[in-house]
Amino acid sequence: MAAKPIILILNGPNLNLLGTREPEIYGTTTLDAIQEECEEAAEELGLGIDFRQTNHEGEMVEWIQQAHDRNAGIIINAGAHTHTSIAILDALKASRIPVIEVHLSNIFRREEFRHTSYVSQAADGVICGLGPAGYVLALEAMANLPEDR
Amino acid sequence: MAAKPIILILNGPNLNLLGTREPEIYGTTTLDAIQEECEEAAEELGLGIDFRQTNHEGEMVEWIQQAHDRNAGIIINAGAHTHTSIAILDALKASRIPVIEVHLSNIFRREEFRHTSYVSQAADGVICGLGPAGYVLALEAMANLPEDR
Amino acid sequence: MAAKPIILILNGPNLNLLGTREPEIYGTTTLDAIQEECEEAAEELGLGIDFRQTNHEGEMVEWIQQAHDRNAGIIINAGAHTHTSIAILDALKASRIPVIEVHLSNIFRREEFRHTSYVSQAADGVICGLGPAGYVLALEAMANLPEDR
Amino acid sequence: MAAKPIILILNGPNLNLLGTREPEIYGTTTLDAIQEECEEAAEELGLGIDFRQTNHEGEMVEWIQQAHDRNAGIIINAGAHTHTSIAILDALKASRIPVIEVHLSNIFRREEFRHTSYVSQAADGVICGLGPAGYVLALEAMANLPEDR
Amino acid sequence: MAAKPIILILNGPNLNLLGTREPEIYGTTTLDAIQEECEEAAEELGLGIDFRQTNHEGEMVEWIQQAHDRNAGIIINAGAHTHTSIAILDALKASRIPVIEVHLSNIFRREEFRHTSYVSQAADGVICGLGPAGYVLALEAMANLPEDR
Amino acid sequence: MAAKPIILILNGPNLNLLGTREPEIYGTTTLDAIQEECEEAAEELGLGIDFRQTNHEGEMVEWIQQAHDRNAGIIINAGAHTHTSIAILDALKASRIPVIEVHLSNIFRREEFRHTSYVSQAADGVICGLGPAGYVLALEAMANLPEDR
Amino acid sequence: MAAKPIILILNGPNLNLLGTREPEIYGTTTLDAIQEECEEAAEELGLGIDFRQTNHEGEMVEWIQQAHDRNAGIIINAGAHTHTSIAILDALKASRIPVIEVHLSNIFRREEFRHTSYVSQAADGVICGLGPAGYVLALEAMANLPEDR
Amino acid sequence: MAAKPIILILNGPNLNLLGTREPEIYGTTTLDAIQEECEEAAEELGLGIDFRQTNHEGEMVEWIQQAHDRNAGIIINAGAHTHTSIAILDALKASRIPVIEVHLSNIFRREEFRHTSYVSQAADGVICGLGPAGYVLALEAMANLPEDR
Amino acid sequence: MAAKPIILILNGPNLNLLGTREPEIYGTTTLDAIQEECEEAAEELGLGIDFRQTNHEGEMVEWIQQAHDRNAGIIINAGAHTHTSIAILDALKASRIPVIEVHLSNIFRREEFRHTSYVSQAADGVICGLGPAGYVLALEAMANLPEDR
Amino acid sequence: MAAKPIILILNGPNLNLLGTREPEIYGTTTLDAIQEECEEAAEELGLGIDFRQTNHEGEMVEWIQQAHDRNAGIIINAGAHTHTSIAILDALKASRIPVIEVHLSNIFRREEFRHTSYVSQAADGVICGLGPAGYVLALEAMANLPEDR
Amino acid sequence: MAAKPIILILNGPNLNLLGTREPEIYGTTTLDAIQEECEEAAEELGLGIDFRQTNHEGEMVEWIQQAHDRNAGIIINAGAHTHTSIAILDALKASRIPVIEVHLSNIFRREEFRHTSYVSQAADGVICGLGPAGYVLALEAMANLPEDR
Amino acid sequence: MAAKPIILILNGPNLNLLGTREPEIYGTTTLDAIQEECEEAAEELGLGIDFRQTNHEGEMVEWIQQAHDRNAGIIINAGAHTHTSIAILDALKASRIPVIEVHLSNIFRREEFRHTSYVSQAADGVICGLGPAGYVLALEAMANLPEDR
Repeated sequence: MAAKPIILILNGPNLNLLGTREPEIYGTTTLDAIQEECEEAAEELGLGIDFRQTNHEGEMVEWIQQAHDRNAGIIINAGAHTHTSIAILDALKASRIPVIEVHLSNIFRREEFRHTSYVSQAADGVICGLGPAGYVLALEAMANLPEDR
Repeated sequence: MAAKPIILILNGPNLNLLGTREPEIYGTTTLDAIQEECEEAAEELGLGIDFRQTNHEGEMVEWIQQAHDRNAGIIINAGAHTHTSIAILDALKASRIPVIEVHLSNIFRREEFRHTSYVSQAADGVICGLGPAGYVLALEAMANLPEDR
Repeated sequence: MAAKPIILILNGPNLNLLGTREPEIYGTTTLDAIQEECEEAAEELGLGIDFRQTNHEGEMVEWIQQAHDRNAGIIINAGAHTHTSIAILDALKASRIPVIEVHLSNIFRREEFRHTSYVSQAADGVICGLGPAGYVLALEAMANLPEDR
Repeated sequence: MAAKPIILILNGPNLNLLGTREPEIYGTTTLDAIQEECEEAAEELGLGIDFRQTNHEGEMVEWIQQAHDRNAGIIINAGAHTHTSIAILDALKASRIPVIEVHLSNIFRREEFRHTSYVSQAADGVICGLGPAGYVLALEAMANLPEDR
Repeated sequence: MAAKPIILILNGPNLNLLGTREPEIYGTTTLDAIQEECEEAAEELGLGIDFRQTNHEGEMVEWIQQAHDRNAGIIINAGAHTHTSIAILDALKASRIPVIEVHLSNIFRREEFRHTSYVSQAADGVICGLGPAGYVLALEAMANLPEDR
Repeated sequence: MAAKPIILILNGPNLNLLGTREPEIYGTTTLDAIQEECEEAAEELGLGIDFRQTNHEGEMVEWIQQAHDRNAGIIINAGAHTHTSIAILDALKASRIPVIEVHLSNIFRREEFRHTSYVSQAADGVICGLGPAGYVLALEAMANLPEDR
Repeated sequence: MAAKPIILILNGPNLNLLGTREPEIYGTTTLDAIQEECEEAAEELGLGIDFRQTNHEGEMVEWIQQAHDRNAGIIINAGAHTHTSIAILDALKASRIPVIEVHLSNIFRREEFRHTSYVSQAADGVICGLGPAGYVLALEAMANLPEDR
Repeated sequence: MAAKPIILILNGPNLNLLGTREPEIYGTTTLDAIQEECEEAAEELGLGIDFRQTNHEGEMVEWIQQAHDRNAGIIINAGAHTHTSIAILDALKASRIPVIEVHLSNIFRREEFRHTSYVSQAADGVICGLGPAGYVLALEAMANLPEDR
Repeated sequence: MAAKPIILILNGPNLNLLGTREPEIYGTTTLDAIQEECEEAAEELGLGIDFRQTNHEGEMVEWIQQAHDRNAGIIINAGAHTHTSIAILDALKASRIPVIEVHLSNIFRREEFRHTSYVSQAADGVICGLGPAGYVLALEAMANLPEDR
Repeated sequence: MAAKPIILILNGPNLNLLGTREPEIYGTTTLDAIQEECEEAAEELGLGIDFRQTNHEGEMVEWIQQAHDRNAGIIINAGAHTHTSIAILDALKASRIPVIEVHLSNIFRREEFRHTSYVSQAADGVICGLGPAGYVLALEAMANLPEDR
Repeated sequence: MAAKPIILILNGPNLNLLGTREPEIYGTTTLDAIQEECEEAAEELGLGIDFRQTNHEGEMVEWIQQAHDRNAGIIINAGAHTHTSIAILDALKASRIPVIEVHLSNIFRREEFRHTSYVSQAADGVICGLGPAGYVLALEAMANLPEDR
Repeated sequence: MAAKPIILILNGPNLNLLGTREPEIYGTTTLDAIQEECEEAAEELGLGIDFRQTNHEGEMVEWIQQAHDRNAGIIINAGAHTHTSIAILDALKASRIPVIEVHLSNIFRREEFRHTSYVSQAADGVICGLGPAGYVLALEAMANLPEDR
């Protein structure tokens, strides 16, 4: 029996704080809860997931490097590194698997310096401003990407 | 029996050309085919849709103005007007119903002048670069928006 | 008996929404009410008015073109087109009759992109931030413009 | 018998030259004549005025500071200081009474460095390009400002 | 007998005013006169022309969309829309027939905001500053474009 | 007996080199000596301190995340990360305890790229250019912050 | 008996309003109260102070010029002139005594035009965002400046 | 018998390479061939031509200086000097005869630094992107320039 | 006997410090010494001078205003106000007598913000970087200005 | 017998992927092969090398800090961190040994954001665009640096 | 008997046209006349001059290079090359003799691109806007430069 | 016997001054000495060289044009023209032989205007900051360029 394709879901700096601090801004959903929602959605879509968070740019780069052989796609919310890390951009470009960028908030309605994304330059698609539901939508999109992308 | 909520799906200039020209770039899916996919997805989600296209900024503004009373939400792909129309931004802001912005291609990987979006400033969420599937994902997101948004 | 000079009062996109939406921001005065105030003020000043609104840039351009022969002056609140339309600027420049620009709110205290006005480059005077009263003041100013302007 | 509300009318650097030099540009109306027109108009509107001119930014700041307790509103033509003085902006912001900015010429049709106004960021309204009549219109606007501004 | 190839000649906002207003600036040649010159020149070159003017961006977009099947080339003077319309740029790009941009005046010697042209990004060639003769030269150039452009 | 409030004092990249290299520029005070001065000053102010240094942005982010529950305030000299790390800015914003930014040198008199500080956007106060004494002044300021900050 | 060194404490435009207006923003501490706190702190540090406020740039320049011979150091809160006055910068540079810049609020979290400081280019140190306590900290820093600064 | 008016046709750096290198980009037409086409076209138009090429800015300046007395007009393709030479601009301005600028390729679709032209500021008209035919069109335009230009 | 024409020589902020501070930078010549040199040179040229210095922008503005009737020309070294004062520019423009701008140092080799001069926009000539001798050269130039300037 | 001087050769993020991915872009040479080439070249030049790679900015900073005592020079290819890391710049500046920057590709012919290098500000020399040979050339240059650099 | 010191007076592109073209702008003084005035003034000052003009940047560079050994100073009006030539700047910097920059017109009141001068970065002094007299003033300034400049 | 491949080594403006002026900055190595070092190195590498210097941009362009047929590669130090000459860039691009750019100093640590290089856009590799040795390294790199570059 063929193994299910595994989607790597990567979360950048400070996303581990989700739901436990400033709930009036970011809501009360924790990153663990998002992981659970993703697992359920993946189950239904016939996918597996590998859900991680790191505050270290170097670790994020290495996870992306390793994804090439082990994973069918990358869903990435790079947090603050979205706007500053060319190293993550380079790693994503070297990875030849599909990439979908996710942001919980609409970054275009926040400070000027959050309007630029290096990640977008390597992503197949971008979903932002839809809260935790954005992760599930990204999984669905990943499941339906055309073969010859 | 309560009527189904109707989502207004608005398409801006040149999107009527979709699928019939430059298929090597934009794919062979026509705007009609996207409309059909949306109707099926809406059906399953218990929503109705009102799907339109215009090359006129003024007509787009008026459709948005009228959406306030008749519709439960707006999904908008404003095409080239995304980057130039403050009038559409103002109309969206005046409309108090949910707004999700959609783009077929990843506008952040195209020319510099397509990196700015006035629409994003009024949108609850943004989905781009996922092709026709982006419209269906927007419908699902619309169906799941929290009450007290 | 000589006809009264007619002042063309032109309103741009979304101004038809005035007073009926977001009253906490724009007040409860409708565009119809402003028109009435203008008619009364014009009456007293010995002027007639021709009061219009459009969401279409092209229609606005044509109204300005036709003003040349039929009207004694133009009072214009171009709404969002204030900041983006060179076509309206060109039409105003071609019109050789007096032009006064009006804005209900103080555009210089709003978003950056509302700080530039193409209309100002063709206007004799600018009145902004004084609400509906700005229209009446513009009519008074129009009535008192020096002959050899 | 209640005293009439007093409007402070402030004029910045070089406005004392008005009418006596370069009449082909600024017209032959002197600042004294403008003051007289303002006094007549105020009389009719049931207002008093306190009309001043200074070439010193510090003196302008102090007049604005003192306006708070003694005056019902400020009409200000800050001249060249319009474009350079954050100190005047701060004084105006601290003053909690209505502020209307006036310019004799349309500053948006002059040199680039005259297109920005710090005063506008603290003003309720702006009137420019209407010549001496702009002062009278500002007085009328002041008389008609809504209570709960 | 094979039909003559038809060249679509499109004129943008305010060009209908040509020759009848501000003759000291734009000369006394009307748009009708230019059309006649173009018809004569086309006759000699064995071409037909379809000459139009509109003040509406949306109408311009649709004429360009329809040109694909019916016309052999587009000569376009987009007027003020030259500098602001990405929608026209997109329509021109989708059209796979030759495009030559024309301007009556030398736009590079006018205001800063007229120095950028979206149309130029989709044009094969640009002719500007040569007055009405520029249209005729564009027709000659169209007649002599290499097959394998 | 209630425990003393603990202030977290964080030092970013290359600050471990202090005093041992380029003494002609940075003086001969080592980071250890600064720590000692801070401990003495804290003792007098009835505070405890937790003094750390890291060259890793990710480690800095995690120390700030953990400060929320354990510490009464953060004094931070983020070194070169001051100018590049949005991740540190986000961590500081999520932390709801007081933050004071310290720099040994006056960064506004150094290279252009050191004039912008992301840390300043999340700091209650900034002290720079006062050398090692700046750390002690920051501790005093921390001791005297009003309750309802 | 040697006289105590006198520190000149200079306050720029609108700081005289402190505490009496907009207390919800600037707190209820008046400039007089700050002066008292400074006098007490100076007493303890063995320093004298000369505390002044002016709304006039020229007066500020002259106080700085005179400081050279009479004072041991300058603590300056130049208010709005911080961002616009090269004359104050030049005077501070000519003065060869220590300079510490103070701001009550964190200017880096306010409007863009308050992010640049000419004063910083001549200051030994900068303290901002710590409220009235910043003045006392500046005095302490002044008392502890190394001899061979 | 009156001599034919002579048009000076000037070509800047690297245009001597035309047709012999990179034919896949610039086509196989040599500068000599363009000269021949120009001679034939001039013959028909009753004009003479003086066709030159130089890689030296100083030589170009001197040819333009001498054109004043000897020539009826200048057609100039300044190559790379188009974007960098104020000296050529000054020489063209001093020359009081008609100037038409020509470029073989559409410079607005090439690198950013080729989008600005000093030559355009002194030219009556500009023709670009039409290949060698652009030279002939420029000659025709020159032949038809109005007397009172 | 006709009075000698009087040249007003105006010096801006901090120029009163000349020669007594930082002699290694500005030399040991005081402003008094410059005045003496000017008086001698003026004597020889048949001119009188009126030599002043102020640290107040407002005072400078008023001296320039008064120059119109009493003086034959203005030589101005506006010091730091050179780069920030539009009020001085306006006063100079209103004055219809000749203006020559002087700077002791070559301002173009100093900080970026000293490279722009508002004064230059109103000056007939500029002399900078020649030290005190620049004042004398300005007087000579003033003596030799053509009548019909 | 004196030990050979050791050159530290440092490689930044994603360089570990070299040769194994996207060989059509980066060639088939792996980082291991480059290390071997360097070892051979060093042998001939009488040098030893210490060759490392890291994806972590903090680790790179620490290696540079330790180089001071142990190494005779640093050859660094900081990869994506070249363009974003002030921390690496500061570490290199603190290190008093020679630094040569290497890039495999010509970064000036790639994306805009790769044109700026913080590393260059601390480097003695820069070699880029010469592929793996660049490392060997850097070693030769290191061997021949003058003593009194 | 000691030879007189020789001042090299260099003139850049298009200055050979002086006086013979556009006399309404540049006056009727030719470059020859300026040379004569300079010779007379030099005679009186005990100086010799070597007066030249070139339209070639390379020739200008070489004249400056040769000046080092043969001349006592350089007076240079580099014309249009003032704003574009780093090569001339480098040559002037290498020359260790005094340099005074001259411009006939006030370049700061002309087009934006004439406001920057590379020459100023190497000049001891700058004189502009004083017409031909500027050359003579420069000679006087040269004669009076202090020994230890 | 096959002739040795000849490498053209081109030097731009002011490089002829090398070693004879400002030796404290540029060292005492003359351009002749560099030529000798290159000749020796070339000898060993089996290459011939053709070493030239010019102060004229046009001459440089022509040498590059002629290199195509006669030379196997170009090593170029364009001096000040590096930053200003698009003509040299175009000539290098037209030349289909390998190009290596050399600078004696690290241009990235000098003035802002020396940070941009047009030459880099056409170069295969860049070597800077390594002094005269950079020429020899460029020759080695040239000798080892892969065939299928």
